[in-house]
Amino acid sequence: MTGLQTTAPPLLRAAQWAIHQRVTGLDAETAHDLTRATVDWFAATVAGHDAEPVRILRTALSEDWSAGRSALVPSGERVPVRTAALLNASAAHAAELDDIYREGLFHPGASTVAAALAVGQARARSGTDMLTAIGTGIEIATRVAAALQPAHYRHWHTTGTVGPIGAAAAAALLSGGDADALAHAMATATTLGSGLQRAMHQGSMNKPLHAGHAAEAGVLAGQAAVRGLRGALDVLDGLGAATADGPDWSGTFDDLDTVRNAAALSVKAHACCGHIFAPIDAAVALRDEHGIDPASVEHVEVATYGAALRVAGNPRPRTRHEAQFSIAFCVATALTYGEVPLAAFTPQRLGSVPLRDLAARVELAVDPGSEADFPGRRGARVRVRLRDGRVVEHRAPTRRGDPDAPLSDDDLREKFDTYVEPVLGAARASELARRLWSLAETDDVTGLVDLREVRS
Amino acid sequence: MTGLQTTAPPLLRAAQWAIHQRVTGLDAETAHDLTRATVDWFAATVAGHDAEPVRILRTALSEDWSAGRSALVPSGERVPVRTAALLNASAAHAAELDDIYREGLFHPGASTVAAALAVGQARARSGTDMLTAIGTGIEIATRVAAALQPAHYRHWHTTGTVGPIGAAAAAALLSGGDADALAHAMATATTLGSGLQRAMHQGSMNKPLHAGHAAEAGVLAGQAAVRGLRGALDVLDGLGAATADGPDWSGTFDDLDTVRNAAALSVKAHACCGHIFAPIDAAVALRDEHGIDPASVEHVEVATYGAALRVAGNPRPRTRHEAQFSIAFCVATALTYGEVPLAAFTPQRLGSVPLRDLAARVELAVDPGSEADFPGRRGARVRVRLRDGRVVEHRAPTRRGDPDAPLSDDDLREKFDTYVEPVLGAARASELARRLWSLAETDDVTGLVDLREVRS
Repeated sequence: MTGLQTTAPPLLRAAQWAIHQRVTGLDAETAHDLTRATVDWFAATVAGHDAEPVRILRTALSEDWSAGRSALVPSGERVPVRTAALLNASAAHAAELDDIYREGLFHPGASTVAAALAVGQARARSGTDMLTAIGTGIEIATRVAAALQPAHYRHWHTTGTVGPIGAAAAAALLSGGDADALAHAMATATTLGSGLQRAMHQGSMNKPLHAGHAAEAGVLAGQAAVRGLRGALDVLDGLGAATADGPDWSGTFDDLDTVRNAAALSVKAHACCGHIFAPIDAAVALRDEHGIDPASVEHVEVATYGAALRVAGNPRPRTRHEAQFSIAFCVATALTYGEVPLAAFTPQRLGSVPLRDLAARVELAVDPGSEADFPGRRGARVRVRLRDGRVVEHRAPTRRGDPDAPLSDDDLREKFDTYVEPVLGAARASELARRLWSLAETDDVTGLVDLREVRS
Repeated sequence: MTGLQTTAPPLLRAAQWAIHQRVTGLDAETAHDLTRATVDWFAATVAGHDAEPVRILRTALSEDWSAGRSALVPSGERVPVRTAALLNASAAHAAELDDIYREGLFHPGASTVAAALAVGQARARSGTDMLTAIGTGIEIATRVAAALQPAHYRHWHTTGTVGPIGAAAAAALLSGGDADALAHAMATATTLGSGLQRAMHQGSMNKPLHAGHAAEAGVLAGQAAVRGLRGALDVLDGLGAATADGPDWSGTFDDLDTVRNAAALSVKAHACCGHIFAPIDAAVALRDEHGIDPASVEHVEVATYGAALRVAGNPRPRTRHEAQFSIAFCVATALTYGEVPLAAFTPQRLGSVPLRDLAARVELAVDPGSEADFPGRRGARVRVRLRDGRVVEHRAPTRRGDPDAPLSDDDLREKFDTYVEPVLGAARASELARRLWSLAETDDVTGLVDLREVRS
């Protein structure tokens, strides 16, 4: 804690670390990790920007909005700061492509980057300021999320409940707040967090809105705090008692100087529920190694940890969202096409007879090894029996994209291109990528998303 | 349930009742009760409109806002619909003068009326439309609140958590939504609800923001639902499991046709915590009956139910907010001045030596009779020992303003004048009162708060 006050409430200690961090600046490695998180956020946000829930929210809000200083992604249209945070964060979470902090059961980037972009643009801050704010929000919110788990996740969607805290820290920092303002911003954000697990079923469109609401609530808390709105600095005790098993917060922020969670974010390599990643990785490995023709597959057994089966055990998905949470459909897709991008969930694919037929031959089981490793590592074993009698098997001990098997910068560039090029075209996608990878050298992020002048 | 579908999810059944109610129209008694709720809301909102948290929120938001169609109270300034809902509902809850639904531990008007006013103005609806929407929000949200209690109130501030549901119902109804849209509006609002008890201590300014956030979240949910945003219609099960003891919702809305909670709203006669009302009523009765000179008082015993002592037992308040939650200070004020309006909490009053001296002589105890009646009735006994040896005593079996001792229309007019005249002046206050009491005859609520042309 850099020798700062240690008897202060945890939120204030975290805020003091953040201010210290702002003063000392980002080292190159941290700046690189945060740049990756920002590039990944843009890939996810562009992919989700026109998903149905986001489109509806945009229509509903557009009745009332007017010009502002913060850009919608990717159109660049300028709207008020909270509106931009709300819509961009909803988009970031809509396509199931945003980052994960595994220990927190939490998507920290969706709301934090959205808030930092919106406020950074409204206040014409530099790229380094924006990255510092993103890092502050991610480091603090991931620790809050992890402290609440696993109890919290039973009823609550962490991305909605803890998301406002990261967004508020980023917003307050970019608004010039001191440690006191940051602490009160996070305190107010804590009591504005919301999001029920139960809200995300039955064809509900609330899941992306949880992230959007988190970003907007965080921006409100941050902007009000720098103007003097005080919260209750011990409110984490209330959050812990109300939504988890009352964790002890006294040491939650002790390792802020020595551990960087920004280096431990999972980057989604597939456009579906993260619990399906290891089965997909294993299926792709089998396909590549054995040149499997999906028509030659008689039976598939997927064995993984139990939580994955509970969340993603749906054998016959009907909608895109259901298919994104179906191991059977995703593994059939992986065996057939060798990848599971967002394009794997078009109506055509959902209705494909060969795919549905293959998915019907996928059987699920618990793999004791994967179960023992969970939640630290998320592994799976896939065994394929071919019609010619051969049986092939592959075990993925962890997920590609997790901190212990990270995507390279090139992998991340490929993910970005996959989702951004079809929307912006190659020239603008390339220019946006260039700007994002050099964000730390940008004096003013205001024009970051303005791409109209770029020739395509 | 007017013969409607009874196997549908409770939220959909409630929505079907609301649509039926919109079609059949308001009877005179219901219209009168809802007009009273609206008049009371305006009194509370004008009283709170310049409280510190509201002023800070207004400043923070004004950096980004632009002209809209919904009016701030009482200035009449036009801002976007969600901004108006947020600021007006925060103001409504800021002065501790807004209505109470006793069984729900809930202030239903703050967010519901704010949402109905903002959306009603944005869509140029009639006074009857606005009253119908307010009635819908109040009836449904009060039932949700009551079903969650008493477990919910341990950690959660019902006005923040359940408030969005009433606001969403009102917003969706005024936006022309059908039963399906209303149900999905309330479902989405349910997962946006928030507000921790722990957030309201330590000089925190979050309490009014809970109501403001509830109104804004409800308006968002309502406006998105009428454009097709779907929630999870069984989300009340999730709310109940996550924040209470998992109540059975199957019968929650069965009495919508036969019981009107709008007739059972408590109207605050004093500008403080409702748990102090019976002690104040008893103290005022003693003062009036015995002509008590506060200087002649040797000792005061206040005996009431235990929950009141836990919430309002503070013997030496330092801030306005603390004094509003101090039985000792409020009873001393009542004995001295015969009333406890907002003006009882000025810095001068807080620093008054005679008042503080009298407050120091107030002793608190549990009254078995009041304890046995709680929570259905909120009574208290006050015994005063005078320096001349006389002992006088009064028991208030219920609170003035509660449904079993309601304020008359004249009492409500007096409350309105008390808080609105000092802000608007007599002429404008009188004109606003005239408009509000005849709201059911108004064709268009757009200009309801425009008072600049009124000569003062």
